[in-house]
Amino acid sequence: MIAARTIPEARAALRELPRPLGLVPTMGALHAGHLSLVQAAKADCTSVAASVFVNPTQFGRGEDFDMYPRDEARDLRLLEEAGVAVVFMPTADQMYPEGFATSVHVGGRLTESFEGASRPSHFDGVAVIVTKLLGVVAPDVLYLGEKDAQQLAIVRRFVRDLDLPVEVTGVPTLREPDGLAMSSRNVYLTPEQRAVAPDLYRALLAGAAAGGAPGAAAKDVVVAATSALLLPDGPLDSDAVDEALAGPRFELDYLAVVDEDTFVPEGALGPRSRLVAAARLGSTRLIDTISVAVPAGDDCTDSPSANVPSSTSVPSSTNASPSSSAYPAKDATA
Amino acid sequence: MIAARTIPEARAALRELPRPLGLVPTMGALHAGHLSLVQAAKADCTSVAASVFVNPTQFGRGEDFDMYPRDEARDLRLLEEAGVAVVFMPTADQMYPEGFATSVHVGGRLTESFEGASRPSHFDGVAVIVTKLLGVVAPDVLYLGEKDAQQLAIVRRFVRDLDLPVEVTGVPTLREPDGLAMSSRNVYLTPEQRAVAPDLYRALLAGAAAGGAPGAAAKDVVVAATSALLLPDGPLDSDAVDEALAGPRFELDYLAVVDEDTFVPEGALGPRSRLVAAARLGSTRLIDTISVAVPAGDDCTDSPSANVPSSTSVPSSTNASPSSSAYPAKDATA
Repeated sequence: MIAARTIPEARAALRELPRPLGLVPTMGALHAGHLSLVQAAKADCTSVAASVFVNPTQFGRGEDFDMYPRDEARDLRLLEEAGVAVVFMPTADQMYPEGFATSVHVGGRLTESFEGASRPSHFDGVAVIVTKLLGVVAPDVLYLGEKDAQQLAIVRRFVRDLDLPVEVTGVPTLREPDGLAMSSRNVYLTPEQRAVAPDLYRALLAGAAAGGAPGAAAKDVVVAATSALLLPDGPLDSDAVDEALAGPRFELDYLAVVDEDTFVPEGALGPRSRLVAAARLGSTRLIDTISVAVPAGDDCTDSPSANVPSSTSVPSSTNASPSSSAYPAKDATA
Repeated sequence: MIAARTIPEARAALRELPRPLGLVPTMGALHAGHLSLVQAAKADCTSVAASVFVNPTQFGRGEDFDMYPRDEARDLRLLEEAGVAVVFMPTADQMYPEGFATSVHVGGRLTESFEGASRPSHFDGVAVIVTKLLGVVAPDVLYLGEKDAQQLAIVRRFVRDLDLPVEVTGVPTLREPDGLAMSSRNVYLTPEQRAVAPDLYRALLAGAAAGGAPGAAAKDVVVAATSALLLPDGPLDSDAVDEALAGPRFELDYLAVVDEDTFVPEGALGPRSRLVAAARLGSTRLIDTISVAVPAGDDCTDSPSANVPSSTSVPSSTNASPSSSAYPAKDATA
């Protein structure tokens, strides 16, 4: 494996690789989720490149840029073991030299709502760094995790809008045995918070289960998930309430059913419906998502003409909630 | 020559071309200046592609998008005769489909001053369409005219900032026998305006001549050029004034000496000094430019350490004003 620190080094190394070439961009602090992106790239492509860059422009003021976990030696070892041919790990000076003045912006609701509302300018940072990485690496396929569903939708949008010559592939979320979506930020959790953290995914599963009921609407999904996340299990007696109040509790940032391409909130469930959620445990913010798509024909509020599925990317089986035997489970949407 | 109307058609045709590949982007209404870009591309590259697209997003409200000259059959013939292998001529729907939401913006003075001040959002339109054309065509070298000097500086800026894998080459301005810079918009001029139009370049030549004097400052260049443009030739008697007032007269938009990379106005002449001007004849706006660079060592206000030229792209001979025998003259900067 070649580790390139500069753009010319990276281009020289990448030129030699047999095509097609897949790119897995990361901010380091690698976990099995990242390695599953490499595996997906290896399955499709002859060569795989990765990048490791903690991109300052996608962190807001007061966010965790300085404390973001970094372990370069470990990252390099894991990428080499995973079969990556070239890893690009530039300095910030390489990526944002003096005089840098260009921004790439996706306008409208897709960037302003949900993560964009909580993290102003975050997606501008994502857009510019992904555009740059595509310029340096020139891959045939770009692999991104489905966990960051809004990021995936935004990257798909500007790749299409700017005619960037790359295919974008979303890779299902990898989870810990108890269901918690893998994330480099999980290391921030205290043991008590870590014990509670899987409740977020359990809430999404409850939402997806509600969405699988005949005639369910998006509201039913949201109510089921929100209740599962915020209300204590079991009878609402005083002991249960006391116990719930004593431990770490989620503060909900958002929980909504959206069209997964546009992130417009949906009233009726459709073939691109996705339940997205962000919640805080103390100072750590967790996000997770699950497909709650139903084939167009299953949406009883649609007109008869909607029986033709409007998307082939969502298999009709995805309206089933993942079975509990699927831990470590992947998001049901391939 | 293949004329591709859609992005997939263009990509399929371009894939077959031997490399390196040069791209000449145009808005059609071709003249000898465009064809000189094709010739420059042929001199460097094995294959040449061109695009013809009157990009709506770079026209402001009240600008000439609707009346911009179009003659597709003639453009195709000229490009084929010039040796272009593939011409990409998409519809606006192809380039800006429903849901299009992405902008590419170069921030700061480079886009906000001069042309940017006169034409708000113009350069955002340029940035997005050039990024898209580079994405579709994936050329090795992009050819742009030096006449649009600010556009050239902006494209160089975002190509570098976004690490777009293309070299940008500026091509000297081609001029009519009387010195008027070739432009598709020259057809808007009335015969009377056309007779006066070469005064703009004559004014730039006067500015460059003043800049060639020992110890000249940027102010000397600006004063010489402005006087040449706005004051009548010969003695200021009442006949001369009457004659000047009777015919078409230039209204000056701007005339300044700037660093040609940053478009920051300069006080002292340096190795990247460029005189830029925009002026109106009736409703037609003309722009033109000339290098007024002096080698770093000739700038008596510079410190001794500035004797090392900071740019190799400006040959030391460019501080000579073009000789009158150079008509049809090229801008002195190669």
